[in-house]
Amino acid sequence: MSFDLTAYMTELARAVDLALGRFLPAESEPPETLHRAMRYSVFAGGKRLRPVLVVAGAEAVGGRPDDVMPTACAVEMIHTYSLIHDDLPAMDNDDFRRGMPTNHKVFGEALAILAGDALLTLAFRLLADNVTAASAGSRLHDVLVEISDAAGSPGMVGGQVADIECEGKPADAEIVDYIHTHKTAALIRASIRAGAILSGATPAQLDALGVVGNALGLAFQIMDDILDVTATSEELGKTAGKDQAQQKATYPAVHGIEVSRRRAQALVAEAHAALAPFGPRSRPLRELGTFMIERRA
Amino acid sequence: MSFDLTAYMTELARAVDLALGRFLPAESEPPETLHRAMRYSVFAGGKRLRPVLVVAGAEAVGGRPDDVMPTACAVEMIHTYSLIHDDLPAMDNDDFRRGMPTNHKVFGEALAILAGDALLTLAFRLLADNVTAASAGSRLHDVLVEISDAAGSPGMVGGQVADIECEGKPADAEIVDYIHTHKTAALIRASIRAGAILSGATPAQLDALGVVGNALGLAFQIMDDILDVTATSEELGKTAGKDQAQQKATYPAVHGIEVSRRRAQALVAEAHAALAPFGPRSRPLRELGTFMIERRA
Repeated sequence: MSFDLTAYMTELARAVDLALGRFLPAESEPPETLHRAMRYSVFAGGKRLRPVLVVAGAEAVGGRPDDVMPTACAVEMIHTYSLIHDDLPAMDNDDFRRGMPTNHKVFGEALAILAGDALLTLAFRLLADNVTAASAGSRLHDVLVEISDAAGSPGMVGGQVADIECEGKPADAEIVDYIHTHKTAALIRASIRAGAILSGATPAQLDALGVVGNALGLAFQIMDDILDVTATSEELGKTAGKDQAQQKATYPAVHGIEVSRRRAQALVAEAHAALAPFGPRSRPLRELGTFMIERRA
Repeated sequence: MSFDLTAYMTELARAVDLALGRFLPAESEPPETLHRAMRYSVFAGGKRLRPVLVVAGAEAVGGRPDDVMPTACAVEMIHTYSLIHDDLPAMDNDDFRRGMPTNHKVFGEALAILAGDALLTLAFRLLADNVTAASAGSRLHDVLVEISDAAGSPGMVGGQVADIECEGKPADAEIVDYIHTHKTAALIRASIRAGAILSGATPAQLDALGVVGNALGLAFQIMDDILDVTATSEELGKTAGKDQAQQKATYPAVHGIEVSRRRAQALVAEAHAALAPFGPRSRPLRELGTFMIERRA
């Protein structure tokens, strides 16, 4: 059976963009600058990887893309808010992101902070709206726990704090794993599981998808670290070699390129093994795993 | 029938503090600095007015304080996150809050931004945990909509953007109403209604509590504006006269002190009228309304 991952991702990204456009407040509504700032970063490009993973997680247990679209958009908003805040002068102080000036370079720091806050808040509104049937209340509860833990101090925010605190210090394997697992893998894992929860996954399926999500999330970040070393700025749409310049804790810095690459491959193999019981419905997730380690940017 | 508002508020504030201590991550858990920063601002004092309003909103329709405590703590975390971000150098640039150094003065800007992000995220986790019974799923949905709209771009964040954009410009009555309604009244209104939603309020009751919440929230902020002019820094625990120095859009600046005071009194009278159908169970909300305009700090 043939499966065209590029077509799958392109089609979903288009559907996600349309939905994001509907869910975000219009630029013509006051306060206009806030809504412009929110939309600027949400529509600054990107593969919509996390929304695609929400959909693939749903499909792995028999769910349909349309039924998880608000949640797919919610995780993209959370991802976008985290990029806006991470780019701030007080944090990574980045001027460019995906080839465009960062949010605070265009709108100023105050608006950038507030646009991030508003996107995070709107994300939870979308999670709520994805589950309206009273009978599905426990699914809404479970999705909220999944996403808030992955995004907050036990997950992404905790990882960003560790990342900042380790800058310029000699990194070891344990710290890099902590940072990558929390800062990147947690939300990727939660994206897959949230789609599955909404689609009625069993506890055993959710356990397996937790393994898948953790492995794919870590593999994704390891490849990100590797590409920062091996790809050009043009390929990446952001400054290459920045991790080393900022003395960031990365996989290549601790393990070298080749060991890092093998580790990413092993993680994807682990994800593929955990997906076996799901059968053909998990084909998108399988292929997304392969994509994680074969991508060039 | 006698009712001791001071005792009511003190007792509830103590219960809220205990619950907040349980819900917040321990300082001993990594990343320790993040958890210290979160706890620092949550426990920097304050009347716990919004949590008290969640409880009073619940009681007005027959609910019990214990049953809404996670939601009460969630709105306090949202309020605290908003103060941390508002105090940042890029926003109001405040060094002191309730007589203590602001979060970024103690932990640095990066941690202050992230502590705010983590508190906002944790708040939604608490909202989820307040409703575990699947049968109450629609209440969870309604509470999430209530709180996220009040906290996000249609509410508090939108109000803060308007506040920043109007600084130093001549304010008019319409703009001040917009700012106060969004920045302050929205979350106060949502606090009262969230408590009521969780306690099974009817649509008619929720409509009435919307009127009450809007009136009390606006009255509260008008009194805040007035106290900034008439009270001392010692009474306020923050720099008095700062609104005028920063050319903030305030009620006294637009209407003068006496008209502002009468407007606050009229709003509380409006709230009292809307509470009449609730009978004796709404006594705490009634008294809280009176407190809003009689407080000295």
